[in-house]
Amino acid sequence: MQKNHFRECSVVQSPFDPGRGSRTAALVDRLKAEIADGAYPPGSRLPSTRALAAELGVSRTTLTNVYEQLAAEGYIETSRGARATVVDDARRRIPQAARDRTRARSLPPRLSRAAGSLLAFERTNPLAYPLGPAQAVPLAIDFRYGPLADADFPKSAWRSLVTSALLARQPRLDYGDPAGTIELRAALQAYLRRARGITCTVDQIVITHGSQQALDLCGRLLLDPGDTIALEHPGYRMGALAFETLGARLAPLPVDEHGVVTAGLSALRGARAMLLTPSHQFPLGGILPIGRRLRLLEWAERQHAYLIEDDYDGEYRYDSRPVDALFSLDRAQRVLYIGTFSKTLSPQLRLGYLVAPPHLAPVLARLKNATDRGTGRLEQQALARFIAGGQYERHVRRMRRRNARRREALLAALQRELGDRCRIQGTDGGLHAVLWLPGVRASQEAAIARAAAEAGIGLHPIGPTYWRPRAAPHRADVPGTAGHRAAARREAGFVLGYAAVSTGQIDEGVATLRRVLDRFVP
Amino acid sequence: MQKNHFRECSVVQSPFDPGRGSRTAALVDRLKAEIADGAYPPGSRLPSTRALAAELGVSRTTLTNVYEQLAAEGYIETSRGARATVVDDARRRIPQAARDRTRARSLPPRLSRAAGSLLAFERTNPLAYPLGPAQAVPLAIDFRYGPLADADFPKSAWRSLVTSALLARQPRLDYGDPAGTIELRAALQAYLRRARGITCTVDQIVITHGSQQALDLCGRLLLDPGDTIALEHPGYRMGALAFETLGARLAPLPVDEHGVVTAGLSALRGARAMLLTPSHQFPLGGILPIGRRLRLLEWAERQHAYLIEDDYDGEYRYDSRPVDALFSLDRAQRVLYIGTFSKTLSPQLRLGYLVAPPHLAPVLARLKNATDRGTGRLEQQALARFIAGGQYERHVRRMRRRNARRREALLAALQRELGDRCRIQGTDGGLHAVLWLPGVRASQEAAIARAAAEAGIGLHPIGPTYWRPRAAPHRADVPGTAGHRAAARREAGFVLGYAAVSTGQIDEGVATLRRVLDRFVP
Repeated sequence: MQKNHFRECSVVQSPFDPGRGSRTAALVDRLKAEIADGAYPPGSRLPSTRALAAELGVSRTTLTNVYEQLAAEGYIETSRGARATVVDDARRRIPQAARDRTRARSLPPRLSRAAGSLLAFERTNPLAYPLGPAQAVPLAIDFRYGPLADADFPKSAWRSLVTSALLARQPRLDYGDPAGTIELRAALQAYLRRARGITCTVDQIVITHGSQQALDLCGRLLLDPGDTIALEHPGYRMGALAFETLGARLAPLPVDEHGVVTAGLSALRGARAMLLTPSHQFPLGGILPIGRRLRLLEWAERQHAYLIEDDYDGEYRYDSRPVDALFSLDRAQRVLYIGTFSKTLSPQLRLGYLVAPPHLAPVLARLKNATDRGTGRLEQQALARFIAGGQYERHVRRMRRRNARRREALLAALQRELGDRCRIQGTDGGLHAVLWLPGVRASQEAAIARAAAEAGIGLHPIGPTYWRPRAAPHRADVPGTAGHRAAARREAGFVLGYAAVSTGQIDEGVATLRRVLDRFVP
Repeated sequence: MQKNHFRECSVVQSPFDPGRGSRTAALVDRLKAEIADGAYPPGSRLPSTRALAAELGVSRTTLTNVYEQLAAEGYIETSRGARATVVDDARRRIPQAARDRTRARSLPPRLSRAAGSLLAFERTNPLAYPLGPAQAVPLAIDFRYGPLADADFPKSAWRSLVTSALLARQPRLDYGDPAGTIELRAALQAYLRRARGITCTVDQIVITHGSQQALDLCGRLLLDPGDTIALEHPGYRMGALAFETLGARLAPLPVDEHGVVTAGLSALRGARAMLLTPSHQFPLGGILPIGRRLRLLEWAERQHAYLIEDDYDGEYRYDSRPVDALFSLDRAQRVLYIGTFSKTLSPQLRLGYLVAPPHLAPVLARLKNATDRGTGRLEQQALARFIAGGQYERHVRRMRRRNARRREALLAALQRELGDRCRIQGTDGGLHAVLWLPGVRASQEAAIARAAAEAGIGLHPIGPTYWRPRAAPHRADVPGTAGHRAAARREAGFVLGYAAVSTGQIDEGVATLRRVLDRFVP
């Protein structure tokens, strides 16, 4: 199912590849080959530059450069006034290296446990759709969650912001503060207070390469291999991937229509952290009630654990103002807040941020420094001005209106085409809906997705959000357990992202889906 | 010595922060406060929207929104036709949260071992210069290694490349291939063959956020906590930092004027990897002879270990063509090659890359995906065109000429001002020179740097490149050992970066340095 985009690309060749170029380079290669073939045995002297230059018809300067190059690479030794000498090892070794240069010897790789965990997790939790943008059959309409519409990006505004960031004179082109430029962090600080009720200092903010790096940094800060982190189940597969790669043990947190169920919290001992999406649970869409929020905060304080609040789409509420962040309710400095611009601007910017308690933020900045020394300056400065100038909030309002129209179109089309044959969940906010098919088993999800793809529609099963930890088999794997029965009972579901499709495509896509589903839905 | 840039920034406030804004938000806050104060006890009913709207002088629609917001946040319960009711927990909990929201409770942080290693390494290996661009005293002329000159960046070319990348229409704004855009990898593939003698497929290339992320990914791929990696000593402190943060044990590789000394290699058993700078050893500047290169490759093959080749400034050779990469000599697929654009374009781009053997590259791409889902698209596409259009190689040649002039100016000035009182090393390539002061003890480096800073000159000790592992004290710490005696014997040295200063500044800076050094150098 998963198509390997890399393989395809391996045959791509740049149209211009003139080889290694210069005359000097060609002569260096030729002399290496002659040394390799024994024309100049070890310890022997090469011809004088004057003699060989004449023989080869090149300038003496060129040949001097050739000899210097061979000497720099250690094949010959030169000294002023004496002729160049072939070094002892040159002959035996050059030809092997040259002959074997392209030989692909396959070795059993000795990879780290982190790499092993990553690969095992991906095997256990295959994506229902390809990793990259490649798709075996081009889809006419794709309800994949994640992408945004090209037309929604504020291109001309961004162009002038990037241009002015680029043309701004600096004393020098220096590595910046690994936590992010002060301009962006100050703009974010003010924005977070206005828009999300978050009061923090700029010191508490670390700019990241999207929310994924924020998750990775949180894991590296808080978790040792073998430590437990609790994650929503169903929940964000890429979050589980990040922590599994760090060697953590994943504990599933049950989720209902309001979000994480907190009834069993007291049984969750020893977990050092918890990943939550309280504003709009991914994928089920619950908005976590205040009582549960407070119970989670109490749990974290009692356990000396941390809550990682992934506010991935908090900007998108359609019927009411965004709910206050968990971070802003936290009295005990146990919450790390993650925000992203992937849902409001573009996932291609790779811009997100962390807001951490004061005692953690400086350590996160050091980790960011050890990891990649900080995020690129141009895009940070463009974004800082976009936010500080008020354009960002206008843009978010525009995005909210556009996506509200898409959401309405989707709900209307589903009602019109499928009516009672489907159940829709989690549409109070965000950029996706969950489509459940009552009476259809979860085991049918892949077949339905395949049939939809054949009809040109991208329809993506909810299955991968029921992630399974690598280390211990998920309870659903053990026949006879409650988890297994629940998984078998679960009805088929799909995550329908609508941020990258037009309302016309939504109408058309859902109509086509109905015809596909006619073969599956009773 | 190290100045905390963060602290300063904490007082920065954005000029516009009108609070939470709308009337609805203000009313939500007011009602929360009233519930908190007991005006509406748990279980009691709020006034009808009509009554309260009249009382407050707002529209009923506004007040309906307020109630919906309070309900969404879980403070009240609403049901059609009935009056809103305050939930049980609301009173007890809201006021605590509100009162304590800004209270800063200091907790003993329970951080990961990775974070602990990082902090311990930074304590043991303090930077001689600040982390960020902030500097206690503004320096008139700074010989810090790392930054480039603002005027050297091809701003207008970059602007048009970014603009056309930005305006290019895409079917959707999607997450890209985590390994990098195919355009950039294809352009790099051709460039590497032309310029560095590296033959690879695009599959083997992974675009990274600078060489630092490449180091981090290599470490995550190859090393478990407790595994040994060998690093040049003296060597690149940020490399040591990356691997120490991953919990690796660092084994020092001795270095002479040609690069890594391979005589003691056979004693180095159990190391799983080695970080090398064969093209231009950092900081001493040696170009690794072919014999040593081959011995390192044999060692790696025998040990089933990997060589990480950090070719951070391979473009800068002044007297001969760049030496072939270790990667291109490798017959056994044991070399991971790291390149960067931080030395030819700008460290602020955060663009680098890895070329890995075919059996490792796909795993690196997955790790990159787990870590940050890939690098931003705009800068990748701009760079792809810059390389593919031939502009990059012209730019590199221009940079080489400019930096050759700076280098000549530096060497001439040092000769003129200091003559035999100093010894210069490692200037065959790169963007820095090592200035040794015969007869002056290494322990004087900090005092000399301080005196230089007071005279407005940034002069940076070589000391931090003699990194010390966190776990075991470096042999130099143990009195009576050879390492200790060597460290005590070592003369004072400084790394002079010249890529961000003009030739005029070089003349002036070295003249000032001479006056400073008069107080220290015999």
